[in-house]
Formats: sequence, structure tokens, C-alpha cells
Amino acid sequence: MTHRHYAHTLHAGQCHYGWDNALAPVQIVPPGETLLFHCKDASDGQITATSTSDCLARLDAARTNPVNGPVFIEGAMPGDALKVTIGAFTPSGFGWTGIIPGFGLLADQFPVPKLHLWHYDTKLNEPAAFSPYGRVPLMPFAGTIGVAPAEAGRHDIIPPRHVGGNMDMRELRTGSILYLPVEVEGALFSIGDTHAAQGDGEVCGTAIESAMDVEITLDVVKGGAPRFPRLTTLSADPRHLDRNGAEVTTGIGPDLMAAARDAVSGMIDLLCGSYGMAPEDAYMLVSVCADLRLSEVVDAPNWVVSFHMPRSIFD
Amino acid sequence: MTHRHYAHTLHAGQCHYGWDNALAPVQIVPPGETLLFHCKDASDGQITATSTSDCLARLDAARTNPVNGPVFIEGAMPGDALKVTIGAFTPSGFGWTGIIPGFGLLADQFPVPKLHLWHYDTKLNEPAAFSPYGRVPLMPFAGTIGVAPAEAGRHDIIPPRHVGGNMDMRELRTGSILYLPVEVEGALFSIGDTHAAQGDGEVCGTAIESAMDVEITLDVVKGGAPRFPRLTTLSADPRHLDRNGAEVTTGIGPDLMAAARDAVSGMIDLLCGSYGMAPEDAYMLVSVCADLRLSEVVDAPNWVVSFHMPRSIFD
Repeated sequence: MTHRHYAHTLHAGQCHYGWDNALAPVQIVPPGETLLFHCKDASDGQITATSTSDCLARLDAARTNPVNGPVFIEGAMPGDALKVTIGAFTPSGFGWTGIIPGFGLLADQFPVPKLHLWHYDTKLNEPAAFSPYGRVPLMPFAGTIGVAPAEAGRHDIIPPRHVGGNMDMRELRTGSILYLPVEVEGALFSIGDTHAAQGDGEVCGTAIESAMDVEITLDVVKGGAPRFPRLTTLSADPRHLDRNGAEVTTGIGPDLMAAARDAVSGMIDLLCGSYGMAPEDAYMLVSVCADLRLSEVVDAPNWVVSFHMPRSIFD
Repeated sequence: MTHRHYAHTLHAGQCHYGWDNALAPVQIVPPGETLLFHCKDASDGQITATSTSDCLARLDAARTNPVNGPVFIEGAMPGDALKVTIGAFTPSGFGWTGIIPGFGLLADQFPVPKLHLWHYDTKLNEPAAFSPYGRVPLMPFAGTIGVAPAEAGRHDIIPPRHVGGNMDMRELRTGSILYLPVEVEGALFSIGDTHAAQGDGEVCGTAIESAMDVEITLDVVKGGAPRFPRLTTLSADPRHLDRNGAEVTTGIGPDLMAAARDAVSGMIDLLCGSYGMAPEDAYMLVSVCADLRLSEVVDAPNWVVSFHMPRSIFD
């Protein structure tokens, strides 16, 4: 355990794999400090540039989704908000997207592992090719940002909670400000699961999973705990993915999850038919750039979930 | 019943209030025709510029959500797709948004009727003021576009179905192309429920409800029936609502609808706290300009629903 007071870098090894308010902090900082986190990818380095699809079936689950931390913020008390200002990302240039058996929105339809490796422009000026099908503009963010829950014990790293965690919200990008409810003294902040790009839903279960460094400023808003995480973005999505419109599929019915599955299945069928893609490739491609939206949730008893695939990907 | 072959205008009175494949067509057209629809508002004219909130509790439900049609398209057969190209809207300049008891995502929290009347620029160059709180850019679309289902009998106009209907998708705007599955000979197309603006979700149950004329071109794609409606948009949302970013609230948990309700409740609380709005006003305002998204639907057992309120509304 490291106890460097007011030091500013959390190294890749200073990580954990589950939320637990009994974990000793690896860093103790006053409010207002900016820290650099060396985030590992969600496989904890198990997927490399030489990995193949069968690696996905052999992943060590105990090493899934490492997060750097916990960081103890002095003065943060239950009932406060932890204000997390997201600074610059320095991406590695290597990433992966995978279909992992038993995981993902259509896990029943995609039982066989498949791995796609990405090598991308670390300056993010060029979209990443999903050869030969299309090009995906990049927008790095941290999929997992959270604080320790009040409830004792170890809490699985995969599900997000009211204290944040693995939210996989693509708005957790440079310039955004996230507010998390503090539940234990010091908040015990952790971050990881950096992604180079993702669509709303992360439907195949993975984004462009990629190790990155990220600058984070941690501050405290006394008495400001939100009931659920909330955030402020200060600019439009820089990718302008919708500039040429979108192909939109829907699912309609009384169950939102079933409707989401129908919308995603419909898009996979459409892309396979239009571009001759393998279904597995279409599933991975939409996971990194297409968005799931709730178009209508009031016209009982049926709701409309829509899935939006930017046409610019195929330009 | 009107039987004007190949005529091009459907007048406001040529409407119905429920899907039924036994309804006689009010127009019979060959594929490729462009028609003008004089769409009434969703209250069928019951809400006027002199209406007050108590009118919402006295609405005649039998006159809810009128749609112009049905139009019989020659050559359209079960298994085909009806290709609906959405042309120009000519809006009336008057609209309303309402909290209708028993209707809306948070109906349990908002039992009292409330009506907001809008008078807006018919050229759509100016956003509509939701005085004194903000200004809502306009983007007209048709909330209800559908064809008759194969199943006999009268089907309620409110819920959308696999054959479309009251989908309330804001992408059903000028320039979009919608594909609907044809289930009966002639398709029996109808359209109505025109909105001057709406956010994804239409959370209070109403948008800016507004009578409009709209040009629609109807064509047939033989054998092209999608399982659910799908559409193509050809340009970015012209409103650029996200240009200054957004306030984003979330709901996190195992039930998507509960998470959507938490995200919307959180936004109403935020707007009331930040701008001193009445909760009823906040609920109506977000319904016309904030978007519900499925940020994450794979990190079992908890999902993240997010609600995005454009900051530009308050500029």
C-alpha cells in the first residue's frame, strides 16, 4: 500500500477489482487536487496485440475491470457530493472490442467469442478503421468512475450503482463534471475502464477498450449529494457523428429491454444486408458508435426504443 | 366518405381515432404520389388559445389523437414495406403542452392538470419562449404515422405497434424516410399528432402539440417489410441543441422504467433548484426538449438511463 500524501500520480498497479469501503486508500489528497491516473484496459492487460478470439473465453474474471484507487479526499463526508472534473486523456493507441460469451445485450444470440483489435491515432485526429466496413471517430472517456458505497463488504465491479461505478456513459469525457454522492469519509474514489469510443448502450458489452492516462480534479460540494450520479457537459459531442443523419431501427412493446433487443437485432440485420458484414462484426461495430434512445415512454402500454447508427461511419 | 381518386389533399375532417383495417379509405393513390395532410392537433381542437388547465381534465377521450386517413396505396401488399418520405411542414403557430391526469411517465407524482400554451414563429427561425425560463428551438414532426394492422377490430390509437402508429419519434421530421411493414392490401396509411418540438421520451406525455400541414410521399418496396418500423435521417438535428453541452441526470438499477423515472425526477429537482421553476413547469419543459437515453444496458444486473437537458435552452 502506498501512502504518498498529496502525490499526483496513481500508477497502473495501484488498482483494485471491487468496491469496498474497507480498502485502504492508495492516495490521500486535499480537495481541489488534480491527479493523473494510469488506467489499464478492462482486461487488465490480458488482451494484447497478439491476442485471438479464443482468449476471450479464457479471461481471468478476477482481473476484470481494474480501477485505480481508492483515493481518500480530505473533508469529504457522507451527504457531500464529490465533484469530479475530467481533464485530458492520453490514450495508448491500442484497443480491443470483444464478444464475450454470456455477456452483452444479445448474449443468447452470440455465444461464440470474437475479438477485434484496434490500432488508432493517439492524437485522435483520425477515425479508427473497422476495416473494411467503416471508420469510427474517437472520443475517449472513462467507463468506470465511482466512490465506495456505505454498505460494508465487497461489491462486484461490473454493475453500476447509485454511487456510480461502471456507468459506461460516453459523456464522461474531457471537460465534463460528474457529481457523485459521498457515502463514507474520504469518498474513496476510483476510476478505470477507459474507452476510446462507445455508443449509448455499449450493446455488445464492450467498447473500444483501451489503456489511457487521464487527469482528474477532485473537489467536494458540502451537502450536495445527488440521489444518483449527475453530470454537466460543456460542449457538443466533438465527433459530430450525426452530420449525415442516421439509420434508425426500433423495437416497440411493453418491455423496454425486449424493445432494446429488437432495435439492436434490427440494426444488425440491416447492416448485414446492406454491407455484407458478418453479424458478429455488425454487433461489435454498433457497440462502439450507435446509440440506444428511449423515443417514447408514455403511450401505454407500448414503448419505443430506437437505435441510431450514424451514416457518417460509412462515408 | 370521400372517394377522390388520385387527389392530393387530406382535409382535417378526413380523420379517424383508431386503427382498423375495416375502415374505408378516404383516398386511393398509386405508389409514388405526394399528398398534403391537414393534421389536427392531438386534442382534435379541444384545446384553444383561450383554454385553461381545467380543460385537460374534461377532454373527450374519444376525440384523442386524430389521424388523417386511411390512404389506400395501390399495389401495397402484406410483406411489402410502405416507404414514407416526409416533406415540408407548415405549422399553425399555436401549440400546447399539458400535464393530463393519469398520463405521463410521472403520472403518480403529477395528479393535477396543467396547461401551457405556446405561440411560436411559423417560419421556425425563432425558438419558442417558455417564459421566463428558457427558449425551445423548434423541429416539427409527426408523432403518429402508421398503417392498419392485420388483426381485425379497432386498435386503440395511443399505443404504438410493430406497424407504427403513435411512435412519437422526433426523427419523423422533414427529410426522413420511414419504412413500415404492410399488413393489409393497400397498407391503409394514416398520419397525425404533429408536434412543433419534443425530447426523446415525451416524458410528461405531451410535446408542443400543434396542428400542421405536412407533405408526405408514399411508395412501396416490394417484399421489404421490416419487423419493426425503421427510418433513415439524412442530416443532423437542425436545432444543435447540444452546442453548449447538457445537464445530465441518471437513474441506475435493474428496471429500465424505474431508472427512467429516477432520471427524469432528478432533472426536475435540479431545474427547480437551479432556476426556481415550479415542478409542473419543469416537467413540461423537459418533455419538449430533453432526451432519455440508454447509456448502458449490459453491466448486469444494473442499467443506466440518462436524461439530457440542453444547456442552450437557458442561454
